[in-house]
Amino acid sequence: MEQWQGPTAAGEPARDGGERSGSAGEALELEKELQQGAKKPFTEVIRANIGDAQAMGQKPITFLRQVSALCMFPDLLKDPNFPEDAKEKARRLLAACGGHSIGAYSVSPGIELIRQDVAHFIERRDGGIPSRAENIFLSTGASDAIVTILKLLVSGEGRSRTGVMIPIPQYPLYSAALAELNAVQINYYLDEDKCWALDIGELRRALKDARQHCQPRALCIINPGNPTGQVQSRQHIEDVIRFAWEEQLFLLADEVYQDNVYAEGSQFHSFKKVLFEMGPKYSGSVELASFHSISKGFMGECGFRGGYMEVINMDPLVQQQLSKLISVRLCPPVTGQVLLDVVVNQPQPGDPSYQQFCQEKQAVLSSLAQKAQLTEETFNRAPGIRCNPVQGAMYAFPRVHLPPQAVQEAQALGQAPDMFFCLKLLEETGICVVPGSGFGQKEGTFHFRMTILPPLEKLKVVLQKMSQFHAKFTQEYSQLQLLGNSQKTAEKQGQ
Amino acid sequence: MEQWQGPTAAGEPARDGGERSGSAGEALELEKELQQGAKKPFTEVIRANIGDAQAMGQKPITFLRQVSALCMFPDLLKDPNFPEDAKEKARRLLAACGGHSIGAYSVSPGIELIRQDVAHFIERRDGGIPSRAENIFLSTGASDAIVTILKLLVSGEGRSRTGVMIPIPQYPLYSAALAELNAVQINYYLDEDKCWALDIGELRRALKDARQHCQPRALCIINPGNPTGQVQSRQHIEDVIRFAWEEQLFLLADEVYQDNVYAEGSQFHSFKKVLFEMGPKYSGSVELASFHSISKGFMGECGFRGGYMEVINMDPLVQQQLSKLISVRLCPPVTGQVLLDVVVNQPQPGDPSYQQFCQEKQAVLSSLAQKAQLTEETFNRAPGIRCNPVQGAMYAFPRVHLPPQAVQEAQALGQAPDMFFCLKLLEETGICVVPGSGFGQKEGTFHFRMTILPPLEKLKVVLQKMSQFHAKFTQEYSQLQLLGNSQKTAEKQGQ
Repeated sequence: MEQWQGPTAAGEPARDGGERSGSAGEALELEKELQQGAKKPFTEVIRANIGDAQAMGQKPITFLRQVSALCMFPDLLKDPNFPEDAKEKARRLLAACGGHSIGAYSVSPGIELIRQDVAHFIERRDGGIPSRAENIFLSTGASDAIVTILKLLVSGEGRSRTGVMIPIPQYPLYSAALAELNAVQINYYLDEDKCWALDIGELRRALKDARQHCQPRALCIINPGNPTGQVQSRQHIEDVIRFAWEEQLFLLADEVYQDNVYAEGSQFHSFKKVLFEMGPKYSGSVELASFHSISKGFMGECGFRGGYMEVINMDPLVQQQLSKLISVRLCPPVTGQVLLDVVVNQPQPGDPSYQQFCQEKQAVLSSLAQKAQLTEETFNRAPGIRCNPVQGAMYAFPRVHLPPQAVQEAQALGQAPDMFFCLKLLEETGICVVPGSGFGQKEGTFHFRMTILPPLEKLKVVLQKMSQFHAKFTQEYSQLQLLGNSQKTAEKQGQ
Repeated sequence: MEQWQGPTAAGEPARDGGERSGSAGEALELEKELQQGAKKPFTEVIRANIGDAQAMGQKPITFLRQVSALCMFPDLLKDPNFPEDAKEKARRLLAACGGHSIGAYSVSPGIELIRQDVAHFIERRDGGIPSRAENIFLSTGASDAIVTILKLLVSGEGRSRTGVMIPIPQYPLYSAALAELNAVQINYYLDEDKCWALDIGELRRALKDARQHCQPRALCIINPGNPTGQVQSRQHIEDVIRFAWEEQLFLLADEVYQDNVYAEGSQFHSFKKVLFEMGPKYSGSVELASFHSISKGFMGECGFRGGYMEVINMDPLVQQQLSKLISVRLCPPVTGQVLLDVVVNQPQPGDPSYQQFCQEKQAVLSSLAQKAQLTEETFNRAPGIRCNPVQGAMYAFPRVHLPPQAVQEAQALGQAPDMFFCLKLLEETGICVVPGSGFGQKEGTFHFRMTILPPLEKLKVVLQKMSQFHAKFTQEYSQLQLLGNSQKTAEKQGQ
């Protein structure tokens, strides 16, 4: 195993980008201290560091849990309080389980019926472009599937090591998995000045540089973006596909936020759909794996660890290896598979649960849209903070100006300057966000990632507090700077 | 990624030992053909190939599912049909979840409360020897934890590659994980003539040989044994610990069958307990990771993918790396964590569910004990089959005599002879078992692994059919041999 750098090593993200370490570890400590009655300038720790909707109070969608509870404890099938369509779905799913129980293993790629349902879901989503169950692999959350595909693609030593292109800023699963697999991480930078758009020129530059020292083989795209919240335009996706075709790169499309699109004029386009609409030249040859999850969207069922990937144009022998690879861990959690099935096979008009389901789903998504806008607007009113529109996903990734004196003090402590800022923020306000250095960013720029998940009223307060804190932080360190300067002047004059 | 050999490559087990491929793939095909109305010499395929109790009709333990259903759909907390102790457990667990929901991520090592409950469970099991929550890591089934620990231990290239000692026959997760990690698999053979006992002399031999070409660093023990069903004596465990101490090997104790001990005079001894009873010389220095799972025992909840490991005497810096390593996949399924909690924290005398819980648990375990004995006895009555006592776990691993003519025919087909036998068995009887070559066995010996999980009456029939099939198979191939011999004689005479 390779040794990893800690979260404070310059430029090196923690394995989890600090979601779970650094400021998050500190947050846990603070919570314990509060519980033990310690006096703090705040009464609760607000975890805006991780995309965990239900931890922030989002209620589970009733229908998803009803079907799951019926599968969990089939005696409930006799309970008149459960709606008939939930029972019907549960019966159908149980009939597809070994021994009619979710306690049996499924086959390694997941329950056949659910893979079919996923394929039908993809077909509907993509306007009828065919999808086949044999190309669907259910997974233990999207992370599991992403790591599996990377494992499959990566090989070699020295100059023949596999290179994988990832966006910067990125979701740190990628850097962590690549380090673990001894692959080369090839950074391509998203364009902050253009709403974190993908630039083909930048892809070319990154690829050309990388070819000097490794074998680039794959290109990862996160759309909608994490941590950056942009939604790629159809044109950009076409460009990426053309680029992948020209350079014979395997495409990994991380599309777990496909339901989370808020901005007017933004729309989710799946890589699969765009690929097929570009005609057989591309759709017959570009290798693609796309990923989805039940942890995000309107469901936010992170704890279930459910997801799937679809592979397109994979060499049949490689796909056989993929099947072997996933068989080691036996099967993804069946509870997650079952819940995924309800997500891809939702109540239809006329079903007893249809109305309630739609209302709950819509309430979650429109609340997120409202919070996305509020977040952007509030940050952009604050001097020294600049925030791109949160077009999708669940995060804002604003850029913050940090006074030179603060940067120096952080460096003297061996901390990344934005980690220094985030820790101070946490200590003074109880608000936990992730420093941009955990995701990668252009040299000399500073950011943090914050989820838009706190309930609206709480989010308003959080955003106010953060803006005020940044103003105070900036003022204090600028005064220090002035003080330092005047001291220097005084010393000079005294000489 | 390394290329793996297929299941039929001589001596090389499939990644899943054929549980899921080879004969299991064939079984799936046969099932489909039967469903489509094809005529076969049997009416159903019986999957005795995989340790999946509920797939074989074992009913889930009511209390486990009640608590899980309450956590899944907390509205049920108002339902008078659920017992009060189940509700109390569910409330306690929900209070420990982010946002009081099993849909939130847990921290990566698992919910703190459940880790504490696991530690208390281990203390009770081991007669009071202390266990600490910080050394407990919840996992996605035991396989996940085993692969994680191997990943942590393995490094190097060429002669400095890490070697890991595993029993032969073994559970093929080990060979698959070691191949994937580019580690050296060091085989030590269990002694079939002594009920698959572990022999220290054999451990020494294997280690000495391995030191010529790699760096042995760890020793895996499966107790009770899979696929071999033996339960190691306390004396043997002491010997192993002493050996590990002398040779500075990290011990991996796969104890997922700790509740599955049937034979009179056999008893489960945890490595942890024996280690601590051997005094501070050993308990203060031997590094140990032990594994448990909710997939086996009396619960058989394979689909939930729950389990834990406890690490002992791990270097604090290594344990930090372990924490980082597990953070990549975010967290084990919370549904599995919750169910695990009920397993380690069972109803107590006086609780409303106590009696029913004990009855159900006892019914499963005594039925398994009965089936273990039946299996051994029936096989040992069949000429050409010899079966060690099934002291524990869920499998018989009988040795079968295969006529030389059958061995030759298999080899001509490029099949392992026991794979050839198992495929014929499947085609003629619908019974699916795993060839011994999937687990490793002494050169020139042939076995198969069969679960004892089918319901008693069905198991009786299965065992009869298998004995009859083996007799017929032996007779047919012996006649072929005679025929071949007499043809040769006739040819010679005709010359």
